[in-house]
Amino acid sequence: MIEIIAFDADDTLWHNETTYLEASEKFERMLARHYGVSDSEGEIYVTEKINLNYFGYGVKSFTISMIETAVRLTNGRIEGRHIQEILGYAREMLEKEVVLLDDAEETISTLAMGYPLMLITKGDQFEQERKVQHSGLANFFKTIEIVSDKTVEIYSQLLKRHEIEPAGFVMIGNSLRSDILPVSSLGGQAIYIPYDLTWEHETILEEPLGVGQYHQLERLDQLPVLISELDR
Amino acid sequence: MIEIIAFDADDTLWHNETTYLEASEKFERMLARHYGVSDSEGEIYVTEKINLNYFGYGVKSFTISMIETAVRLTNGRIEGRHIQEILGYAREMLEKEVVLLDDAEETISTLAMGYPLMLITKGDQFEQERKVQHSGLANFFKTIEIVSDKTVEIYSQLLKRHEIEPAGFVMIGNSLRSDILPVSSLGGQAIYIPYDLTWEHETILEEPLGVGQYHQLERLDQLPVLISELDR
Repeated sequence: MIEIIAFDADDTLWHNETTYLEASEKFERMLARHYGVSDSEGEIYVTEKINLNYFGYGVKSFTISMIETAVRLTNGRIEGRHIQEILGYAREMLEKEVVLLDDAEETISTLAMGYPLMLITKGDQFEQERKVQHSGLANFFKTIEIVSDKTVEIYSQLLKRHEIEPAGFVMIGNSLRSDILPVSSLGGQAIYIPYDLTWEHETILEEPLGVGQYHQLERLDQLPVLISELDR
Repeated sequence: MIEIIAFDADDTLWHNETTYLEASEKFERMLARHYGVSDSEGEIYVTEKINLNYFGYGVKSFTISMIETAVRLTNGRIEGRHIQEILGYAREMLEKEVVLLDDAEETISTLAMGYPLMLITKGDQFEQERKVQHSGLANFFKTIEIVSDKTVEIYSQLLKRHEIEPAGFVMIGNSLRSDILPVSSLGGQAIYIPYDLTWEHETILEEPLGVGQYHQLERLDQLPVLISELDR
């Protein structure tokens, strides 16, 4: 029996990775044009990986990593006006309209009629709160949890705090690492709906998959049928 | 009757503002020495005020504001190596040991024997979680809430969510704006314990005080006596 259905947010209900990709592309073009740096692709991520432990997830952390990458790739020649330009990318990212995935609103409103829904999103609280508010979906969720990371331990604490049995917990998301593997290893049900783009960090699995099972769908609108099958 | 006692964290239980002050001073010395900028005091705050709406609170936001201030005050002449130096200040801030205020541990452990305690801290979740963990105080708190801001509305939601009557709620903190005024205006009890240093942002009261009453103490170790008086 399903007690509660939980959703990831970024790239599961609304587009997010595209925003980072657009900023990265602007950044790379700027470095190529003004400093002749032609091989900057992937370099922000090199910095980000180191900075994650210090700064965590989100646009601010990404911005600091862009600036640091710019200093590194230009050997310190980066000019103030281009630092300012990078800060402009950050503001654009934070002001960007929240664009829902196809069928997100319809699927969520359908499922909300039959089940309590939970939103579990990882990242910077300030940024995530803004997106939740602007998404127009907040009222469909009984609980909204913004967590600093999505580990087995954090899911386990969440379930305990909300008095949910793992077997009655369904998690839906686009990241095997963050949404699927930890939940299935706890004995919950996990439904994987891949997004076209996945941030490199999310594609790395530290443990081999196979600890638990999970379901996979292509689109959100296939959810209600699968949920009703699982809940028999 | 007191139902729950809530504490602010930064500069109420552990030192925080000193960390920002130290970084600001290094920043100012660096600008003076390498760029002849001698009047940079207070300039980070000018940037921060604008950036708060975009970036929220915390070290990452402060770092972005330092970088932006450096670009502005040097008219774009800031060099990459000094941007890197500013990023170094940020890492130092984030790695800094959590130093408790005098009597914090004893006061908290005493009160925890008689009441459920709650920690309500504002700011960047990632950074606050680290500080809570490193403080050694986490286990004394029944509930830890990291909020994006401390407004009347957010306190009101917190009380509702935890089913706490305002009259049974006591909040202790060092900021009139964030800890005292909103709680006393909701009908809760507020105890103000000023810190030696207060971030400029917290000193600005948007509304005149006097909506509610509050108590004021000089030190944490005076709390148990006041609490027992209030709880009669």
